[in-house]
Amino acid sequence: MPRITAQEIYQICEQSLPWAAMMGFEIAEIGEGTCRVRLPRSDRFLRPGGTVSGPALMSLADYGMYVAVLSRIGRVEMAVTTNLNCNFLRRPKPGAVIADCRLIKLGKRLAYGEVSLYSEGDEADGPVAHVTATYSIPPERDEG
Amino acid sequence: MPRITAQEIYQICEQSLPWAAMMGFEIAEIGEGTCRVRLPRSDRFLRPGGTVSGPALMSLADYGMYVAVLSRIGRVEMAVTTNLNCNFLRRPKPGAVIADCRLIKLGKRLAYGEVSLYSEGDEADGPVAHVTATYSIPPERDEG
Amino acid sequence: MPRITAQEIYQICEQSLPWAAMMGFEIAEIGEGTCRVRLPRSDRFLRPGGTVSGPALMSLADYGMYVAVLSRIGRVEMAVTTNLNCNFLRRPKPGAVIADCRLIKLGKRLAYGEVSLYSEGDEADGPVAHVTATYSIPPERDEG
Amino acid sequence: MPRITAQEIYQICEQSLPWAAMMGFEIAEIGEGTCRVRLPRSDRFLRPGGTVSGPALMSLADYGMYVAVLSRIGRVEMAVTTNLNCNFLRRPKPGAVIADCRLIKLGKRLAYGEVSLYSEGDEADGPVAHVTATYSIPPERDEG
Repeated sequence: MPRITAQEIYQICEQSLPWAAMMGFEIAEIGEGTCRVRLPRSDRFLRPGGTVSGPALMSLADYGMYVAVLSRIGRVEMAVTTNLNCNFLRRPKPGAVIADCRLIKLGKRLAYGEVSLYSEGDEADGPVAHVTATYSIPPERDEG
Repeated sequence: MPRITAQEIYQICEQSLPWAAMMGFEIAEIGEGTCRVRLPRSDRFLRPGGTVSGPALMSLADYGMYVAVLSRIGRVEMAVTTNLNCNFLRRPKPGAVIADCRLIKLGKRLAYGEVSLYSEGDEADGPVAHVTATYSIPPERDEG
Repeated sequence: MPRITAQEIYQICEQSLPWAAMMGFEIAEIGEGTCRVRLPRSDRFLRPGGTVSGPALMSLADYGMYVAVLSRIGRVEMAVTTNLNCNFLRRPKPGAVIADCRLIKLGKRLAYGEVSLYSEGDEADGPVAHVTATYSIPPERDEG
Repeated sequence: MPRITAQEIYQICEQSLPWAAMMGFEIAEIGEGTCRVRLPRSDRFLRPGGTVSGPALMSLADYGMYVAVLSRIGRVEMAVTTNLNCNFLRRPKPGAVIADCRLIKLGKRLAYGEVSLYSEGDEADGPVAHVTATYSIPPERDEG
């Protein structure tokens, strides 16, 4: 069972992650070290060529990793990204984007995982981007 | 001499990069394959701990690389990021961020460069993040 | 069915990849866009602490990606790595290492995939390293 | 002044880094957080097309980072790479390769830097590869 709920994450975002709130990120599923998050369609995220901009995709992936990490360690808001590597694989459609996130390693101090991003409805075409990311977990976290 | 001006880039952003306009990115300097861009302070970009969020830094770096590429190849709006790797090195202050961008290679089809990001006024403390990125340049570009 | 056999790859290595021959890489399985390759135990690859050195792991991952790419496009020896990103996740044991490789995207010009590396016999402990890599495929390849 | 000499590093390599000894890496210069290392020409490192193989370049970069880290923290053999990202930029000539290494950040626990690799004698053509790497520094190190 995940150690945090979608509602708790939305609450964190409203209180202290205005970025995530502004982007309108949604949590479609949350597991143990896995999640699916979603970026709704918005004209604000488009770039020349009518596709979703790279920064919007990277933001979504970073948010998904945050959710996946908290799904294992609970409400540790201060977990921070130390590395994010994004490969853009194909041009996304100008619609919603979904991101499937999965932790590959969870240590005491570091979490590492991967995120596959898809244009919603076009999952069969393969991912539009693939991200790996490392999160640093603060040592003083509540072990409860 | 750069092959594009800051004014022309602002124009592209207003017309077809609403993201950059929304972020309020500024171009402080533009050279030949180099530039300094700036993210003004905004509460929207903060994250728990009162620092600038990772996605805001990655967005700024991606924008800076776009400007650096266009400074060499001119108005080729369809240049797109294929890879962006960001290492977060220290916690930024909750103020403005500047990014110094430099192309390392410009080929016919690919551009590669690096970006060092600093908390404005704290440059002496060293970069808050370091990014490398690859841009793909469309083959059909106007050689003018 | 893969478009190349392990025997053909060993032949390429003997003729023109002395590196792979010197490392003693083995191909355990080869599928369509997937493979499992193996680095046998050798004292030459150790580093302080008695573990397998990072370069040996990266070499194995690069070799595995080469095999995975050729399993889809056939004997195109000139396919070359353009990016390799390696995250080292835990200390490998001083024994053999296996690498599971999987193409995530195969385009006309680029292939992208991921590799998970394990200490042989300790797969249940999770990967010792995780790699993503991009290969460039030469345009003039024989389409046969 | 560097906190380690080239001779001391060669000694470490002979005792516990057979890999580096086997590759024949040389230290051309060592500063404080910087160094230039060199991979001599050898047919063993070639790949199809007659160029130096990617793994040989990544090995050299990893070695250079190790030297650059030890130039600042002294003889801490157990410093280990946690991430290495390599972008291959142009085909190296089949000769010697030199690598210029520079630490960008040295913290208590992590070091981060970049490496530019050149075909010896062709430095003016620009780098053949560019690497960023993170090293983890063991907490129990002798502070002397």
